Amino acid sequence: MAQKIFNAFYAQSGGVTAVINASACGLIETARKEPNIGKIYAGRNGIIGALTEDLIDTSKESDLIISKLKHTPAGAFGSCRHKLSDPAENEKEYLRLIEVFKAHDIKYFFYNGGGDSQDTTNKIAQFSVENDYPLVCIGIPKTIDNDLPITDNCPGFGSVAKYVAISIKEAGFDVASMAKTSTKIFVLEVMGRHAGWIAAASGLASNHESEAPHIILFPERAFDEKAFLKRVKECEDAYGYCTIVVSEGVRDQSGAFLADSGTTDAFGHAQLGGTAPVIANLIKENLNLKYHWAVADYLQRAARHIASKTDVEQAYALGEAAIKMALSGENAVMPIIERISDEPYEWRIGKANLSDVANVEKTMPDNFISQDNFSITDACRTYLEPLIMGEDYPPYINGIPDYVRLKNVSVEKKLKEF
Amino acid sequence: MAQKIFNAFYAQSGGVTAVINASACGLIETARKEPNIGKIYAGRNGIIGALTEDLIDTSKESDLIISKLKHTPAGAFGSCRHKLSDPAENEKEYLRLIEVFKAHDIKYFFYNGGGDSQDTTNKIAQFSVENDYPLVCIGIPKTIDNDLPITDNCPGFGSVAKYVAISIKEAGFDVASMAKTSTKIFVLEVMGRHAGWIAAASGLASNHESEAPHIILFPERAFDEKAFLKRVKECEDAYGYCTIVVSEGVRDQSGAFLADSGTTDAFGHAQLGGTAPVIANLIKENLNLKYHWAVADYLQRAARHIASKTDVEQAYALGEAAIKMALSGENAVMPIIERISDEPYEWRIGKANLSDVANVEKTMPDNFISQDNFSITDACRTYLEPLIMGEDYPPYINGIPDYVRLKNVSVEKKLKEF
Repeated sequence: MAQKIFNAFYAQSGGVTAVINASACGLIETARKEPNIGKIYAGRNGIIGALTEDLIDTSKESDLIISKLKHTPAGAFGSCRHKLSDPAENEKEYLRLIEVFKAHDIKYFFYNGGGDSQDTTNKIAQFSVENDYPLVCIGIPKTIDNDLPITDNCPGFGSVAKYVAISIKEAGFDVASMAKTSTKIFVLEVMGRHAGWIAAASGLASNHESEAPHIILFPERAFDEKAFLKRVKECEDAYGYCTIVVSEGVRDQSGAFLADSGTTDAFGHAQLGGTAPVIANLIKENLNLKYHWAVADYLQRAARHIASKTDVEQAYALGEAAIKMALSGENAVMPIIERISDEPYEWRIGKANLSDVANVEKTMPDNFISQDNFSITDACRTYLEPLIMGEDYPPYINGIPDYVRLKNVSVEKKLKEF
Repeated sequence: MAQKIFNAFYAQSGGVTAVINASACGLIETARKEPNIGKIYAGRNGIIGALTEDLIDTSKESDLIISKLKHTPAGAFGSCRHKLSDPAENEKEYLRLIEVFKAHDIKYFFYNGGGDSQDTTNKIAQFSVENDYPLVCIGIPKTIDNDLPITDNCPGFGSVAKYVAISIKEAGFDVASMAKTSTKIFVLEVMGRHAGWIAAASGLASNHESEAPHIILFPERAFDEKAFLKRVKECEDAYGYCTIVVSEGVRDQSGAFLADSGTTDAFGHAQLGGTAPVIANLIKENLNLKYHWAVADYLQRAARHIASKTDVEQAYALGEAAIKMALSGENAVMPIIERISDEPYEWRIGKANLSDVANVEKTMPDNFISQDNFSITDACRTYLEPLIMGEDYPPYINGIPDYVRLKNVSVEKKLKEF
């Protein structure tokens, strides 16, 4: 009697990136070559798709369409911000997942996300063992925040890093041109609520302290207004202008986000703006210098047009590795990036236990931030530089990237509504 | 006796662009091949360099370095915001210019800028004729605002247009992924104080009304809060999310900038923020939908990494044409782009009199904005599409574009301080 072939569930979780679809592409393309894996069912909007039995049949998409996922940003199947609580608190959700997986012959569970998501993956792995449903659970890392432990870096980060470094370099050239009679200050706000990796990456734009960014503000350091304004003035005196990259997560000495401190709208409601306008206004108030500011927001994490080739390749390889691990009898693990050498940069796929990954946040080490708190060290540069290496341009049609939209055909439901 | 060879003055004026250096490159490379033009002296920081006799000797830069200007954003010689007043009001400045040009054997004047700058070029041309100093004055168009008359389009605009269209497309994919449980509204603020060309270009991202951008807000139309909120709700109902591109210059029914209307900082000072946060907050207050917003600011006009190939080629060709026109006996003119056909797109260099260019601002024609005021028409699309065609990627080193910094060696001064 032939061995029964089981299906797989794949879902995207949390904030999306420029390369999470490259992981999906690696996973689906690899699975299509594996006779021991049936269909890949994607969760529509992450784990919610599993809970509501809202599954997408990826086999309805041609090989060509799936290959285009590699150069398409964001989450092709929809993502979600929904954290499962502990099985002890909400067993219903876990039982429902198993019910859905049973109904659709799913014995492989792949969850593509950050720290919270890998905690979820781990809980599902444990629960399925305890409830005697043999489900192979593999996490696939993803986060622009680069804050997962064990893995050398996280897919999604390298492309944001490249975007941010290029953007501040370009804006720096602009401000340098204008500074004589106009704008002398430029502030770019980047993502990173708790970890300063993205802000740090902007430092790759500069080969000399005269070049942008002149000042980086990290969430790992409490904002020192006096030292900051002194440094701004020094830069303006020395170079005629000053460019600043500020992490959205920068806090004042009391621990409050700067973004929350400055602004109220006409109706008195707080938190209208971001951190960049607060910083720009502080400079205006104290030094009376003409400023511009930018908030990159989603543009930075969706910027597939200038994705890092290293990042795309790693994201794809991690999706591929997830399938291989699942088939080799692993469970409750996550493929990771291991760095073999800095220069020439070499990396390989490694493996972490989900229990070691879940709920650990990796912020910048102290020796990556300069003594004055305003720039990155050589050690940081050595770490970051390979991650933005190479360009991986998408194809264009009529001047616009040819990003793919899937049909996302639903799998017929077999169960009652949840 | 051999004919005396005279030098040329070139300067960059106003807000810089991703391709103004491509015009400089076209001008310098062409001049180097012309035996009847001596050295090109660039004004350090625009016309201020001429007034202060702060001239840069471009002959000190190698051919290789000059060729790299073609892929380097912003103004390599520095720009300025300094408008000469009328000769009748401030003859001193004009006399000084002629004094400097005489001292350095300069008989060609090239000014690379927008409407104000071409007004200046025209005044200098008239003044030099009236004062019997034979100075050939040629304007070279440049403005991301695309608001110069006569020319079909302005160099600098096509690259901003491409950046904005790609950015909203990418952000649209992101929000579509997140909308189920998180962000449903995304607002991107783009430049354009008086003319909506840049905002309009975002419409090229979309092939269907379901795609980003769902709403474009033009400065040519007074903001209608009620109609706007209705449309936002319609999009959210129909597609699950809504993306909006807003021009910084959008005004309310009373004519006040929206950017000025909403925000005060903790000290009660107005105008901290941009238009995007005001729009985002309006939606939050009225529809209670989770939002993100971005302000691209200088990132959009400096984004040489994703410049339009059409734009780069035209900027270069206009610099080249300026030299040819100067040598063919023209004066007080500006090379322009003439469109021969839409599809296939064909263009050639034409010519405009500076007197027809100066102080005329070209806003969007009525038939380029849809009846409901929230999108672009097919006529607009036909006009815009060729301008973002093609990619012209800069070379990269270590993951970062290899933009050039010139030595900018000063010419020895011969005159007293001004």
